[in-house]
Amino acid sequence: MIVILKQNAGQTQVQQLIKDFEAQDLTIHFSQGANTTILGLVGDTAHLDMEKILTNDIVRDVRRISEPYKAASRSFHPQDTIVEVSGVKIGEGTFTVIAGPCSVESQQQMETVAASVKASGAAFLRGGAFKPRTSPYSFQGLEDEGIRLLLAAKKATGLPIVTEIMSETQLDEFADVDVIQVGARNMQNFRLLKELGHCDKPILLKRGLANTIEELLMSAEYILAGGNEKVILCERGIRTFETCIRNNLDISAIPVLKKQSHLPVIVDPSHAAGNTWLIEPLARAALAAGADGLMIEVHNNPKAALCDGAQSLDLPQFAAIMDDIKKRVAFEGKQLQ
Amino acid sequence: MIVILKQNAGQTQVQQLIKDFEAQDLTIHFSQGANTTILGLVGDTAHLDMEKILTNDIVRDVRRISEPYKAASRSFHPQDTIVEVSGVKIGEGTFTVIAGPCSVESQQQMETVAASVKASGAAFLRGGAFKPRTSPYSFQGLEDEGIRLLLAAKKATGLPIVTEIMSETQLDEFADVDVIQVGARNMQNFRLLKELGHCDKPILLKRGLANTIEELLMSAEYILAGGNEKVILCERGIRTFETCIRNNLDISAIPVLKKQSHLPVIVDPSHAAGNTWLIEPLARAALAAGADGLMIEVHNNPKAALCDGAQSLDLPQFAAIMDDIKKRVAFEGKQLQ
Amino acid sequence: MIVILKQNAGQTQVQQLIKDFEAQDLTIHFSQGANTTILGLVGDTAHLDMEKILTNDIVRDVRRISEPYKAASRSFHPQDTIVEVSGVKIGEGTFTVIAGPCSVESQQQMETVAASVKASGAAFLRGGAFKPRTSPYSFQGLEDEGIRLLLAAKKATGLPIVTEIMSETQLDEFADVDVIQVGARNMQNFRLLKELGHCDKPILLKRGLANTIEELLMSAEYILAGGNEKVILCERGIRTFETCIRNNLDISAIPVLKKQSHLPVIVDPSHAAGNTWLIEPLARAALAAGADGLMIEVHNNPKAALCDGAQSLDLPQFAAIMDDIKKRVAFEGKQLQ
Amino acid sequence: MIVILKQNAGQTQVQQLIKDFEAQDLTIHFSQGANTTILGLVGDTAHLDMEKILTNDIVRDVRRISEPYKAASRSFHPQDTIVEVSGVKIGEGTFTVIAGPCSVESQQQMETVAASVKASGAAFLRGGAFKPRTSPYSFQGLEDEGIRLLLAAKKATGLPIVTEIMSETQLDEFADVDVIQVGARNMQNFRLLKELGHCDKPILLKRGLANTIEELLMSAEYILAGGNEKVILCERGIRTFETCIRNNLDISAIPVLKKQSHLPVIVDPSHAAGNTWLIEPLARAALAAGADGLMIEVHNNPKAALCDGAQSLDLPQFAAIMDDIKKRVAFEGKQLQ
Repeated sequence: MIVILKQNAGQTQVQQLIKDFEAQDLTIHFSQGANTTILGLVGDTAHLDMEKILTNDIVRDVRRISEPYKAASRSFHPQDTIVEVSGVKIGEGTFTVIAGPCSVESQQQMETVAASVKASGAAFLRGGAFKPRTSPYSFQGLEDEGIRLLLAAKKATGLPIVTEIMSETQLDEFADVDVIQVGARNMQNFRLLKELGHCDKPILLKRGLANTIEELLMSAEYILAGGNEKVILCERGIRTFETCIRNNLDISAIPVLKKQSHLPVIVDPSHAAGNTWLIEPLARAALAAGADGLMIEVHNNPKAALCDGAQSLDLPQFAAIMDDIKKRVAFEGKQLQ
Repeated sequence: MIVILKQNAGQTQVQQLIKDFEAQDLTIHFSQGANTTILGLVGDTAHLDMEKILTNDIVRDVRRISEPYKAASRSFHPQDTIVEVSGVKIGEGTFTVIAGPCSVESQQQMETVAASVKASGAAFLRGGAFKPRTSPYSFQGLEDEGIRLLLAAKKATGLPIVTEIMSETQLDEFADVDVIQVGARNMQNFRLLKELGHCDKPILLKRGLANTIEELLMSAEYILAGGNEKVILCERGIRTFETCIRNNLDISAIPVLKKQSHLPVIVDPSHAAGNTWLIEPLARAALAAGADGLMIEVHNNPKAALCDGAQSLDLPQFAAIMDDIKKRVAFEGKQLQ
Repeated sequence: MIVILKQNAGQTQVQQLIKDFEAQDLTIHFSQGANTTILGLVGDTAHLDMEKILTNDIVRDVRRISEPYKAASRSFHPQDTIVEVSGVKIGEGTFTVIAGPCSVESQQQMETVAASVKASGAAFLRGGAFKPRTSPYSFQGLEDEGIRLLLAAKKATGLPIVTEIMSETQLDEFADVDVIQVGARNMQNFRLLKELGHCDKPILLKRGLANTIEELLMSAEYILAGGNEKVILCERGIRTFETCIRNNLDISAIPVLKKQSHLPVIVDPSHAAGNTWLIEPLARAALAAGADGLMIEVHNNPKAALCDGAQSLDLPQFAAIMDDIKKRVAFEGKQLQ
Repeated sequence: MIVILKQNAGQTQVQQLIKDFEAQDLTIHFSQGANTTILGLVGDTAHLDMEKILTNDIVRDVRRISEPYKAASRSFHPQDTIVEVSGVKIGEGTFTVIAGPCSVESQQQMETVAASVKASGAAFLRGGAFKPRTSPYSFQGLEDEGIRLLLAAKKATGLPIVTEIMSETQLDEFADVDVIQVGARNMQNFRLLKELGHCDKPILLKRGLANTIEELLMSAEYILAGGNEKVILCERGIRTFETCIRNNLDISAIPVLKKQSHLPVIVDPSHAAGNTWLIEPLARAALAAGADGLMIEVHNNPKAALCDGAQSLDLPQFAAIMDDIKKRVAFEGKQLQ
């Protein structure tokens, strides 16, 4: 971290500031010019609060050099993390597809979809039991019954399941869920993240619509710092000025996350696209850019879906996309899970 | 709501779609052109799911004409809502200032700040007991002890208190809090919003960093739909491409919210500014644009603040701003609370 | 186009409005409900000014159903446009790589780069003679001498050249240039676009940093409406809240542009990335998402480049990326030009 | 400027880099830590190209400490610039209102509007002769005839005129125009800016829809660096994710520009609002935040306006807003021009 001092900073104040930093086990490199005095802080600066330093009268500016996260950083953890769930690997060298409906709606639906997406090559079944909806008048999910139907479909097909948690109070209900999803709107629900740091389940952490890559990694850091090392990052589109699509899939986020962090990165083209016809080109691009997997919305009857029907593939559409994806996974030299 | 059909829509399918809408108590206006067939849906369309309609094979596009919220809408509730707390009024014709530190830190701090901001003209004391921080390594608040210190300061000064809730599990701890704040990151924590809809306390609902005005009103709708009519909206800056300030205060949001909704609107210039010198011009602009109040961060010793020091005014700075604000409130013909 | 009338619209005014539309050769579909009256306008609405209609006292809202562009629209021109330059095809089924330095700097540089990128598989040579630079103190290009050096490199290698125009006054100087590039900052320089509509050269039109896809197509429409049908669209990253990359490559823009328009779409991963290490994953993603080509910055000695060195590949790096791209172009069943 | 070196930077390379900087008249402060080596560059760094430095193999990162502009910076020019035009002052301590139609349409229109806005208190007449329109099918302005009508209205009323230039080729036609406006879409038309730097007329420079405050000041620097010191900055709303308004007026830009620069700052609430009812609250906010003036669209018959009618005030509406503005200008202790 670099601290730039004001021109008129008095010697006594400067010495006091240096002492304060040294008391935090930092080594200080002092560089005085005609107009600018710079302090270079060396040591564990991830714990320093830039804003607090800025309040010092003699400080003009503060700049970070190292990332503000450690456990999530590739610098501190160079080898790729591979999250393993019931024998399925998520991470470098593999490619994992998670598929299923936006909302769990009925036993018949879940059985049909689960059997079909498994046959098409999906490694996980997804489905929302508790749904975060912008409007209080929209369908809010089957709740506990939804979890029960997911577990039944898991039993029938052997597919491990992924479903979204809404609050730290639900952890007991999620005891048999294989991967707990944190939705985009909860990416900075820090109480939830803290609790997930203390549980022993893989967490699929979705990026918020307007959260930076650094904020996503800081949220991962909350979970990792609690002791849970099984975090899967998920890019799902960001909010920009462009209105002709639902969200802008941030394709750069994939290589940036892989460079900055050792955690696996999957992509949700369905929420980015908001429309079925866009899913295939986005899925292809995500794979080509280095993603470790995809999460895709699939419904046995999208027209009757209680949620997100416009972006749900039907079963034959998903099968067709999987045929294409399989060839591309082989081309990339990855192992489809 | 307007439903635009595809050119090749078959008569049978069109008739079926019309029947489906009529079954939902809607009246359908049918308009057929050479290339375009349009259905105009009249009735209570707030409950309709646009995405679901879009999945119909014969539908090309769907457009809303009415707002998707009702309880929060001025169309359904033309007169201004005034939220009254311990005799203080928040809403049209009045101007209310909420002041206090970002974080509650100590008894001495809270007593000093509370007495001082009261003397300067603040009507409410604010202070964070539970803090949402981007980094797990930042100070997370005094928690229960923070609430205790706020209540002690309230007792000493008579100022009602505002503090932020993080989860619906905390409602018991907030039993004596006067106004419960929902932070920007929790604006779409729908489980929390639903619970707040069932409690009898005023809710100060902050706009998310990248949430639209419509989404803010939909989140208010969650609380109102639950039966709690005491909702105060708060604009606090949005995330844009501009990096030289912390957030962009969306000044247009004030008149737009006042036009679309009957709920009071206050502005938090401190979080928008991110820097003390910007607070005064933003506060003046907010008042001139029609805001019903301000929430400002004030600390007895910003340099030692455990959180957000760079944007906290010290006590004399706040007193000076209040002197200016009082003249402007009088100029606007409003009643300072 | 749909015109929604106010509840209190008087019969006389409504009849007058309908007459006004009919006078513009539009057919009107009238749909009256209890609370809403809707006019559906059928005919050539691309020429209608929505804002002007909005100023009518009885109009509440206006919504477009058709796109506001015609010549650029796939609806009016279903088959793909293929732009052919000196025997090189740009468009569906082919894949074209344009490579060269940000700025033309010297004869030796241009000869070295041109020969090398040709050997690696590029079909066009690019290089800036006139440079749009944010700072007046940055290198502004060799200007006329730059054009001369580009033409010399073309003569030596046979590669057709692409270079950026800054003003309609330069058309004479660009007489021997093969493809004229309109830079992102000039995407809405309408005088320039109009003049380019009257010339007989292919135009490579870059999307502005914060321009929507519709605005890009409207700018293409300026050129097409003037009679020049050889327009190549170029996505080069948009401005968002994310700061860890230079620009966000809008990967969705590729399939959206291909769906809405018949014009070829190429991608500039160099300007999006801002950094060499990001170019390869973005190039791969662009190809997988359906782009018809790439424009890549290559320099014989990036460290000494007078412009954009940080994002310029050196010659061996470019050769390596082309080896990879060739395999991927074959996989996609496209013809490398 | 601070240059952060890579951990493995060799001594020879470091010494070479230092020599390179010293050859550019910079003083280097060297600070070596266990993991980080930092060079602090002191001197005139506005001319340094950060990107070029970044291409050096041993450089990890480069950060600016000083602004990249000089002539526009308050650091180098502490006193406020006041631009005087025909006896009207624009700048600190004064408040100037520029009013008139979006487009010049007819002699009768210009005479009516000019006389009326003068009577209401406007100091300048505006009107577009050359119009930048997104669609080639929209009205493009009366061109030369528009300039003639503006000059006639100036002669009749004595109001100096402001009108927008589209290209550097038009300077002769603008010989009698009092203030030349550079529109938002041309803010980075650098050839135009350079030419304006060599002319002796005040330039009203509008901020681009998605340009940062720093970029606006860099564009002002182009004009100032050419020798023309009469630059007036104009904030007119930026592009964000919010869609319920046309543009987001960036109210913070006013105090930020006044702090960073000595140039006058005016605000165009009409283009930000996109709707007449929003103009008054935005105008009030702009004045309260410290703007030196306003530019407002006024039309004698907005319903018949050929451009931007939805955001044009009619003559009585403008008179009413001016009555309000006059009281507020007096309250702020400023002199209405």
